[in-house]
Amino acid sequence: MHNLREEKVFKDPVHNYIHVQDELIWLLINTKEFQRLRRIRQLGTSYLTFHGAEHSRFSHSLGVYEITRRIISQFERNNYPDWPKEERLVALCAALLHDLGHGPFSHSIEQAFDMNHEDWTCRILLGDTEVGHVLKRMGEDFPDKVASVIRKDYPNEIVVNLVTSPLDADRMDYLLRDAYFTGVNYGTIDMDRILRMLRPYRGRIVVKETGMHAVEDYLMSRYQMYWQIYFHPVTRSSEIILRQIFRRAKELYAEGYSFSFLPNPLPGLFNSELTVQQYLLLDEALIQTAFMQWKNEADSLLADLCTRFMDRKLYKYVELDSLDLEKIREIREEFRKLGLNPDYDLIIDFPTDLPYDVSRPDEELRGKQILLLDKQERLVEISEVSDIVRSISGIQRGKFYLYFPDNKLQAVYSQLPADLARIFGQET
Amino acid sequence: MHNLREEKVFKDPVHNYIHVQDELIWLLINTKEFQRLRRIRQLGTSYLTFHGAEHSRFSHSLGVYEITRRIISQFERNNYPDWPKEERLVALCAALLHDLGHGPFSHSIEQAFDMNHEDWTCRILLGDTEVGHVLKRMGEDFPDKVASVIRKDYPNEIVVNLVTSPLDADRMDYLLRDAYFTGVNYGTIDMDRILRMLRPYRGRIVVKETGMHAVEDYLMSRYQMYWQIYFHPVTRSSEIILRQIFRRAKELYAEGYSFSFLPNPLPGLFNSELTVQQYLLLDEALIQTAFMQWKNEADSLLADLCTRFMDRKLYKYVELDSLDLEKIREIREEFRKLGLNPDYDLIIDFPTDLPYDVSRPDEELRGKQILLLDKQERLVEISEVSDIVRSISGIQRGKFYLYFPDNKLQAVYSQLPADLARIFGQET
Amino acid sequence: MHNLREEKVFKDPVHNYIHVQDELIWLLINTKEFQRLRRIRQLGTSYLTFHGAEHSRFSHSLGVYEITRRIISQFERNNYPDWPKEERLVALCAALLHDLGHGPFSHSIEQAFDMNHEDWTCRILLGDTEVGHVLKRMGEDFPDKVASVIRKDYPNEIVVNLVTSPLDADRMDYLLRDAYFTGVNYGTIDMDRILRMLRPYRGRIVVKETGMHAVEDYLMSRYQMYWQIYFHPVTRSSEIILRQIFRRAKELYAEGYSFSFLPNPLPGLFNSELTVQQYLLLDEALIQTAFMQWKNEADSLLADLCTRFMDRKLYKYVELDSLDLEKIREIREEFRKLGLNPDYDLIIDFPTDLPYDVSRPDEELRGKQILLLDKQERLVEISEVSDIVRSISGIQRGKFYLYFPDNKLQAVYSQLPADLARIFGQET
Amino acid sequence: MHNLREEKVFKDPVHNYIHVQDELIWLLINTKEFQRLRRIRQLGTSYLTFHGAEHSRFSHSLGVYEITRRIISQFERNNYPDWPKEERLVALCAALLHDLGHGPFSHSIEQAFDMNHEDWTCRILLGDTEVGHVLKRMGEDFPDKVASVIRKDYPNEIVVNLVTSPLDADRMDYLLRDAYFTGVNYGTIDMDRILRMLRPYRGRIVVKETGMHAVEDYLMSRYQMYWQIYFHPVTRSSEIILRQIFRRAKELYAEGYSFSFLPNPLPGLFNSELTVQQYLLLDEALIQTAFMQWKNEADSLLADLCTRFMDRKLYKYVELDSLDLEKIREIREEFRKLGLNPDYDLIIDFPTDLPYDVSRPDEELRGKQILLLDKQERLVEISEVSDIVRSISGIQRGKFYLYFPDNKLQAVYSQLPADLARIFGQET
Repeated sequence: MHNLREEKVFKDPVHNYIHVQDELIWLLINTKEFQRLRRIRQLGTSYLTFHGAEHSRFSHSLGVYEITRRIISQFERNNYPDWPKEERLVALCAALLHDLGHGPFSHSIEQAFDMNHEDWTCRILLGDTEVGHVLKRMGEDFPDKVASVIRKDYPNEIVVNLVTSPLDADRMDYLLRDAYFTGVNYGTIDMDRILRMLRPYRGRIVVKETGMHAVEDYLMSRYQMYWQIYFHPVTRSSEIILRQIFRRAKELYAEGYSFSFLPNPLPGLFNSELTVQQYLLLDEALIQTAFMQWKNEADSLLADLCTRFMDRKLYKYVELDSLDLEKIREIREEFRKLGLNPDYDLIIDFPTDLPYDVSRPDEELRGKQILLLDKQERLVEISEVSDIVRSISGIQRGKFYLYFPDNKLQAVYSQLPADLARIFGQET
Repeated sequence: MHNLREEKVFKDPVHNYIHVQDELIWLLINTKEFQRLRRIRQLGTSYLTFHGAEHSRFSHSLGVYEITRRIISQFERNNYPDWPKEERLVALCAALLHDLGHGPFSHSIEQAFDMNHEDWTCRILLGDTEVGHVLKRMGEDFPDKVASVIRKDYPNEIVVNLVTSPLDADRMDYLLRDAYFTGVNYGTIDMDRILRMLRPYRGRIVVKETGMHAVEDYLMSRYQMYWQIYFHPVTRSSEIILRQIFRRAKELYAEGYSFSFLPNPLPGLFNSELTVQQYLLLDEALIQTAFMQWKNEADSLLADLCTRFMDRKLYKYVELDSLDLEKIREIREEFRKLGLNPDYDLIIDFPTDLPYDVSRPDEELRGKQILLLDKQERLVEISEVSDIVRSISGIQRGKFYLYFPDNKLQAVYSQLPADLARIFGQET
Repeated sequence: MHNLREEKVFKDPVHNYIHVQDELIWLLINTKEFQRLRRIRQLGTSYLTFHGAEHSRFSHSLGVYEITRRIISQFERNNYPDWPKEERLVALCAALLHDLGHGPFSHSIEQAFDMNHEDWTCRILLGDTEVGHVLKRMGEDFPDKVASVIRKDYPNEIVVNLVTSPLDADRMDYLLRDAYFTGVNYGTIDMDRILRMLRPYRGRIVVKETGMHAVEDYLMSRYQMYWQIYFHPVTRSSEIILRQIFRRAKELYAEGYSFSFLPNPLPGLFNSELTVQQYLLLDEALIQTAFMQWKNEADSLLADLCTRFMDRKLYKYVELDSLDLEKIREIREEFRKLGLNPDYDLIIDFPTDLPYDVSRPDEELRGKQILLLDKQERLVEISEVSDIVRSISGIQRGKFYLYFPDNKLQAVYSQLPADLARIFGQET
Repeated sequence: MHNLREEKVFKDPVHNYIHVQDELIWLLINTKEFQRLRRIRQLGTSYLTFHGAEHSRFSHSLGVYEITRRIISQFERNNYPDWPKEERLVALCAALLHDLGHGPFSHSIEQAFDMNHEDWTCRILLGDTEVGHVLKRMGEDFPDKVASVIRKDYPNEIVVNLVTSPLDADRMDYLLRDAYFTGVNYGTIDMDRILRMLRPYRGRIVVKETGMHAVEDYLMSRYQMYWQIYFHPVTRSSEIILRQIFRRAKELYAEGYSFSFLPNPLPGLFNSELTVQQYLLLDEALIQTAFMQWKNEADSLLADLCTRFMDRKLYKYVELDSLDLEKIREIREEFRKLGLNPDYDLIIDFPTDLPYDVSRPDEELRGKQILLLDKQERLVEISEVSDIVRSISGIQRGKFYLYFPDNKLQAVYSQLPADLARIFGQET
C-alpha cells in the first residue's frame, strides 16, 4: 500500500489533530473491529464519578497512534542510527491496535470471566476479521508481527520498548486524555518536551538527561492521576457493583436460571465459549441494555444490583487505616447474623500502585526502568540521579475501604456491636 | 427543604466546578430519570465525526444549571430590584431539568416518530416519577410551575426569559461544552464577561451596552459552531441513516414483520403508545444494541442500514449550489431505472440556520431579540447598534447536499446520463 | 553556514516551542540589534489598559519566524512544486527581522518625528551592524535580498506574499500573542488548520477552499481584537498623551529650551539626525527614564504630561456619534476662552479599521486579497463565496472620541455652555 | 469609604477578571507608588531565559489581592465563626501592597546594597506618599495596621497567616502567573479546589483533609518551578552579571570615579542614603538606561559587564557534583596567574531550595507548616499523612555551578592545567 494522496486528519481535543498519511492506517481505522472501540469507554465506570469521562478507547487508540507517529517522525528527521526505519509501520499498527481486544468495562469483565484483553487483541488481529484482512495486504506474516509486538516477544526489542515502557505513548496519551475529559489538571505533562528528549539507543528508547525534570513531572502526574481518578472510591464502588452483577449472572446461568433477557453473545460469555465473532458483539451498549432489562428480573439480588448500577445508587464506603483477616471474618459473621449477605453486602478494597519501580538487578525490571542518557553517552537509571524519583519510588499507600449497601445497613445499624457501629458510622 | 450542610461539587471540564447548595437540586440530580440523561449524548451522532463528542445531556444539564446559578447569584449579590428573588428555585429547577425528556438521538427519533422532547419533559415532571416526587416536596403545584417555565407560559416572564432566550444558559453551555469535547476552538466565548453584563430589567434579561462586543463574539461563535459542528456533512449523513433505520423499522412493524430482537419498549415506540415509564427505558444503549442485533436481520434493507450505522460505513455526499424539484424528480426516476431505491438511496439535505434574527415589529420575535441597555437606561435591539450583528443577520446559506450509498452507485455509475455522472462524480 | 549540531529551542507560551535548526538564525537572534527588541513592547501603551501586555517585539519576532518555518516545512514535506525551495533562508530571515527597525512606542514616535520603522529595518540590515555582518556570511548580496523581501520588491513574489499578506505569519502571531498576553480569548484562531490549508500556487500563497471557515474565524478574531484591544479608548488616551509629550519636547528643543535631562540620542531624535548606531540606542527604558526625569521639568506642560503618562493619570474621554468641523472649532474656541489650551487639552480621535477589503479589480489590492483554491483548481476571492466575509467587508465604524484632562475641565465645567456641558458631562 | 457604585474589573490572563468592589482598593491601585510596580518585573532577569517573562509586580500584586479576596469571600459566604470579619480590608490592603517596596531587579540590588524590600514597603506605607494618604482615610492607625500584617507582627495572627504562609495567596499567584508567562505548564495547580478547602481555624488558616492531594500537587509544582524556572542556570548567569555591575559601580563611586551618566537617585543608592521619594524613582527602566549608557564607560570592566547584560552575552557555566574550598582557592590562583580577575571572572553558585520543611517542634516553624483538618476536627501536619510530602521533605539538591566569561577563558584555555581544562572544557 502507499501513502494517501492527501493526508487525512481527525480533530482531537488532546493532540489537536491526528494525522494519517498511510493508506494502511486509514483502512485499519475504518474496519468494523476498530470502530467497535467507540462503544468501549476508556475509563470504564469513571463516568459515574467524573461526568466528562465518557471518552472511548477509539479516541485513546488514535492518540497512542499519533504520539507514536510523532516519536518515529522525530527519529527519522534526526536520522538517529539506532532507529530501524523499516519497523515504522509495524510500530504504528501495534500502537493503533494495542487495545483492540478490550471488552466492555474491561477490568471488571476480565476479572469476572477470567479473560485477558491482550489475548483477544491477538485473536482479532490473526483471525478472519476486517482488521486481519487489511493487515495481510502487507504480507502474510504481517498480522503476526504486529501481534508479536503487542505480546512483547517481537525480536527487534526497540519496537516493543517504544510501544510498552514506563514512558510509552500509551501512558502519555491516557494521562493527558483522562485529565482532559475528567477536567482535572493533574495530567498536564509537557509531552512535547518529553518527545524531543526521547532517543533510540542500543535497542531501547531512552531519555536525554536534560529531560529529567519533565520525566519527574510525568511520574508525579501519573501518581496524582492514580489517586485522584483511577482509584477514586466512588469509581471503585461502581466497579464493585459491576463485578457483583457479572458474578451473580454467571451463578444464575450456571444454575440453569431462565433470564428474561439474554441476547447473543451473553450465553457464550457466561460459559466461556466465545468465538472471535461473538466477542466482537460485546460492547458497553449491550451490557447496559441487559442491565436495564434485568432491573425487573425475578432474581431480586440481580435486579437490585442492576438498579444500583443503572440508577447510580452505589454502595457507600468507610475508610480504615488497617484491617486484619480476623476482623473481616468477624464483620462477615456479624453481617450474616443480622440477615445480610456478606458475599454481596460487604466488599473489602485495597487499591495500590507504585509511582515508579526502583532499579533492581533482576531482568524483569528491564522494561520497567526509565534510563537517562547523559552527555558522556552513559545510561543511568533515573532514580539514581533524581532526588524526587528516588523519594517516591516504592511509596505504597495503605488505606482499606469497606463498601456496603447503605440502606440495608441502616435497617440493622442499631443492632451492630459498638466497635462495628463505630466503623460503619463514620460513613462518607 | 434546606441548604445542604456542606456544598457539594461536581468536577466539570467546562465550568471547573458545578456547585450544589440546595438539597432540592442534589435530590433531583440523584433521581433515576435525571441519571438516565447520562445515556443520551448531547450531540447525537456527532461522535461519528468528532470522536471526542461522547459527552452526555447529563453533563450539559448540570452546566445549564450552573450558569443559571451564577447569573442568579450575581443578581442577588447586586440586589437588582427587577429580579424576583422568590423565583430562584423554580428557575434553577427549570434550568436543570429542561432537557429531561430528550430521547436517544433526539432529533432523528422525534422526526421519525412525531414526538416532542418538551412534551415528554413535562410528562416526566408531572408524572409518578422520582423527579415528580422530589419536586412535590416543595409544594403540590411546584412541578407544574417548573413545567410552565419550560413550556414558556409561566406568568413571571423574566424567569422564562432567563431560561429561554437567544443568550440563555442553555446556549452558552452547549457552545462551550460542544467546543470543548469536539476539540474545536470556535466556541470559546467570554462567558464571565457576558454574565457580568446581564441585567434583569422590566421583566426581561438584557445586556449592558458595554457588553456588545462580547455578544457579537458569542453570535459569531454560534454561527461557526453551526457550520463546523452541528451541520457537518458527515454528521448529517449519519443522521440520515439513523432516520432511515427508524423509518424502515416502523414500516416493517406496521406490516407485521417479526423482528428477531424487539425488547420493550420498542413495540410501544413503533406504534406510538408509550407510557412515561416505558419512555424512560429508551436510551442510546438500547438503540445501539437493537441496531447491532439487526445487522443480521432478515430484512436486508434494515440489516444494511444498521451495518452502515454501527460500522460507520456512511453514505457519501455531493454538494450542489442549487437544485430544483424537476431535477430531483429526474434523478429519482433515473435511480429507479437503474434498480436503486430512491426512497432510501437518495436523500436531499439543505441545512440552514440564521445567525441572528433581525428586529421585526411582530410579537413572536420578542423572545428572540437581544436587547442592550445603554447608559441612559434605554433599551436598544443589538442589530441597531452593532455593525457586525446587522451584517450577519439574515445570512442564510444555500448549499444542497445529495447523500447516497457509494457502493451501490458505483455499480451503476457507468450507466448514468452524463449530467448525473458529473454530479455524482465529484463526490468527496 | 550549516545546520546546528543540535536543534535549539525557545520556550514560548503561544507556540509552545520555537525551533531553531539553522546556525544563521541562531546567530541573528544573538545579535545585539535583535536583542534590543526585548526592550520594545509589542503593543506599545496597551499595558496601561491590559496589565499582562508587557510582551516584547522580541517574542513576536520569534513567533513570526516560527510560523513561517512551519509553513515552509509543510510545503517541503508535501513537495509542492510551486514552492521555490532555495528561498527558504531568505524567507526565514525576513520573517525574523521584519520588525527590527521598530522604535520605542513605535506608532507614536513615528508620527511625532516622521520616521518609518521599515526604513530603519532596512538601514540596520544593510548597515555596519552585527545583524548585517551575520547576513553577509551568506553572500554579499544576502542582506539586500532580505531587505528587499521586507520592502516588498523582491522579484520572487511568493516570498513577499508569504511574509506580507492578509493571512501572513505576522498577523497570525500577533493575534494569538496579543490575545494570550492580554488574557482575552477573541484571538484564538485555529492556526494549525489554517497552516495545513495554505498552498503555494503560481507565485502566491492561497488557501484550500475547505479552510474557508477557519479563515472567516480568523477575520472575525482580527475584527474583535481591533475593537477590544488595539483601539481600546484607554490605550488611545495613553497614546495621545505620549504624542503630546513628544510634540512638546520637540517644540521646546526647537526653541532652544535647556532640558534638565537629555541623554544621547535624544538630541539627534529631536532634530531628525540619527545615525543607525544612535537609533539603536533608542528603547522604551530610555523613553520612560526621560519621562520620569521630566516629571520635574521646569516647563509645566511637559512636566504635567510626563506625570500623567508615568503615574497613569490619563485623559478622560467622551464618545460621540458624529462631529462636524464647525462643532470642533466651536469647542476649541470655548476652551480657549476658559483658559484651556485646545492644542493640548482637546484631542479628537476617530479610530477606524476595515475587517477585510473587498475584491476590486485594481492592482493595489492584489496583495490584500485572500484567495481560495477550489477542487477544480480555480482561484476565487474569499468574499465571493463566504457570506460572512462579504457581510463584514467594508464595515467601518463611526464613533468619535474627545479626550481631555478631566481635572482641568472640572475646574471650568460650570462655565461651559449647556450643549458642551452635556457632551462633556457624560464622561466615562 | 464605601463600596464602588459599580464593581470595577481588570482583565487578567491568570484569574480571568480581578474584581474591585471597595473604593479604598480602587484608589490604592491608582496611586503613583502602586503604578510604579508596572516598571518592576516579577521575575527579575528571567526574561533573558524565558522571553515571555516580562510580567510585572503590578500584575502579581493584583493577583495576590484577588486570591485573598476570593478566600475571604468564601469565608464570609460560609459564615465561618473563626474568621474575624472586621479584618477584611486590612487583609486585602496587605495582600495588595505587600510587594510595594520592591526595587528594580530586587534580589540582586538588595544583595548589592544591603537593602530589604519589606522595610521599604513599610516606609512607603507609613510615609508622605499617595498610598499613605489613601490608607489614612480609613483611620490614623490604618497604615500601621497594614504594615504590621506585612511585618508579621499584627496581633490578630490569622490575618498574618492568610497573607504569609506556605499556602498563601502570594505563592499561589506567583506559581500560576510565572507558569503562564514563561509558558511552562508545571505551575498549573488546582487553585479553585485549594481555595474551597481552606478553613479559618483557631487563629490559623488550615486545609480540609480532603484537599490533601491538591496540596501535594501544589508542593510538587512549587518544586518544579524552582528548578525549571527560578534556578535556571541562564537566569542565574544574568543575575550574577547584574550583581557584578552593581558591585563595580559601587566600588567606582566610592573611589570618586566620575561617571559619564549618573542621574538621580543613583548617587543616593550608591552611598545608601535614599529618601522614600528617591527610592520611588528607582525602576528597571532607569537601571537599564544607565547600563546602556555605561556600555561606553571609560572603566572597561563596567563597560564590559553592561555590554554583557544589555546585549545578552552572558557568562557560560559548568556544572559540578562537588567542590571544596581548596579547589576553589586553586582555581582562583590559576586564574590570577593567567591574567584573569578571579573576583569578576569566576563565580561559584549553589542554588538550593527545600520543597517543604518537615514538622519540627520549634516555634519558628509554626508559620511554615501546612496543617490539615480531619473529619474529627483534629489538626495534623501534612507530612504526617502524605507519603509524597514526607518523601520530598528535606530534599536538597547539591549541584555547584561555576560561571565565567567564555571568551576570556578561551584565550588562555591551552595554558590551563589538565584538571581545570577538563572542568571548564565540558561547558554547556
